[in-house]
Amino acid sequence: MLVIGIAGGTGSGKTTVVDEIMRIIGKENITILTQDNYYKDNSSISFEDREKLNYDHPNSIDFDLLIYQIKELKKGNTIHQPIYSFAKHNREQETTLIKPKKIILVEGILIFSNLELLNELDIKVFISTDDDERLIRRIRRDIKERNRTLEEVLSRYQTTLKPMHEQFIEPSKKYADIIIPNMKRNPASIEILTNFIQNRLNTQNESR
Amino acid sequence: MLVIGIAGGTGSGKTTVVDEIMRIIGKENITILTQDNYYKDNSSISFEDREKLNYDHPNSIDFDLLIYQIKELKKGNTIHQPIYSFAKHNREQETTLIKPKKIILVEGILIFSNLELLNELDIKVFISTDDDERLIRRIRRDIKERNRTLEEVLSRYQTTLKPMHEQFIEPSKKYADIIIPNMKRNPASIEILTNFIQNRLNTQNESR
Repeated sequence: MLVIGIAGGTGSGKTTVVDEIMRIIGKENITILTQDNYYKDNSSISFEDREKLNYDHPNSIDFDLLIYQIKELKKGNTIHQPIYSFAKHNREQETTLIKPKKIILVEGILIFSNLELLNELDIKVFISTDDDERLIRRIRRDIKERNRTLEEVLSRYQTTLKPMHEQFIEPSKKYADIIIPNMKRNPASIEILTNFIQNRLNTQNESR
Repeated sequence: MLVIGIAGGTGSGKTTVVDEIMRIIGKENITILTQDNYYKDNSSISFEDREKLNYDHPNSIDFDLLIYQIKELKKGNTIHQPIYSFAKHNREQETTLIKPKKIILVEGILIFSNLELLNELDIKVFISTDDDERLIRRIRRDIKERNRTLEEVLSRYQTTLKPMHEQFIEPSKKYADIIIPNMKRNPASIEILTNFIQNRLNTQNESR
């Protein structure tokens, strides 16, 4: 089993990389663990207080559960992945049943900020995209998909996203094995990455 | 034929990457073109004046010749690579006869600063190493191999190497397909890179 971590700031293009890997390597071989599903369970806190929490700080993530579930998948066990509701700012009652596959893709902005999690990742890829390009994508996405006003997006970016990026995400880049710059105009990096994954899969198959 | 560019600041670990690629892929398949051999011919200038030139500025490099020779190798032609003498600050009369091989590795601090040269590179790899780590390697190397005093090294670093790095090398990182951070503790990146080269060679062999 191969565990690949894909990190990078908001709007960096992580989803594009994940989608390309899925397309080229094949969905049937890949389990995806998205950091967004591992926000901490905050049932003990009122909705009003949950709204005020800083969801871009590493403390908002249930890394213990994420690490535990990666270990379970590595053992060949099925996991019950939590589902997170952004509307309720809390975990849903339901979970998703996830079976182990040849590749686990762990994806999220903060996954390289936790040293214990880093130890579980065989390959660490950081998507590094210019800050202004990331802001542009974030503005478009939040207005279109999350129904925010422009001023809400800009204010959230300045007060939370940018300081958390500078404090936790950008410094975590140094743990990467490779950094992919500016995804949009970079097909070669996807070829390099998927070549590597394919080779590892072939080696695993041969050694069985 | 596959043309791979390997850039990165002084002391970043370019040579380590090149050596590892040679070891794993095999010398017999690789032609190396080092930027250091392509300093401009300055025979028309006195030794005293040559000593004062800024050898870390892109204008010191004969990019036209480097690009021409890459094109010649791609056509399957042998080239006469210049040899540069750091002692004389000038080209030697002799040249090195270089035959085309399956892979051309172009290596140097400034190779991503020239847009025409970038067009000749199939894969662009930037080695990104912390500035202080690079300085440490530079100090050790210049004192040991080039017989410089510590103060000479530090002064040259502050007056030339650092400003040229900030102006030309660091910004050229964005042209890379992949960035390898902190070479020393990063064997995975070499595996990723050589996997890719090997796959490309295999594809070329199959298509013949």
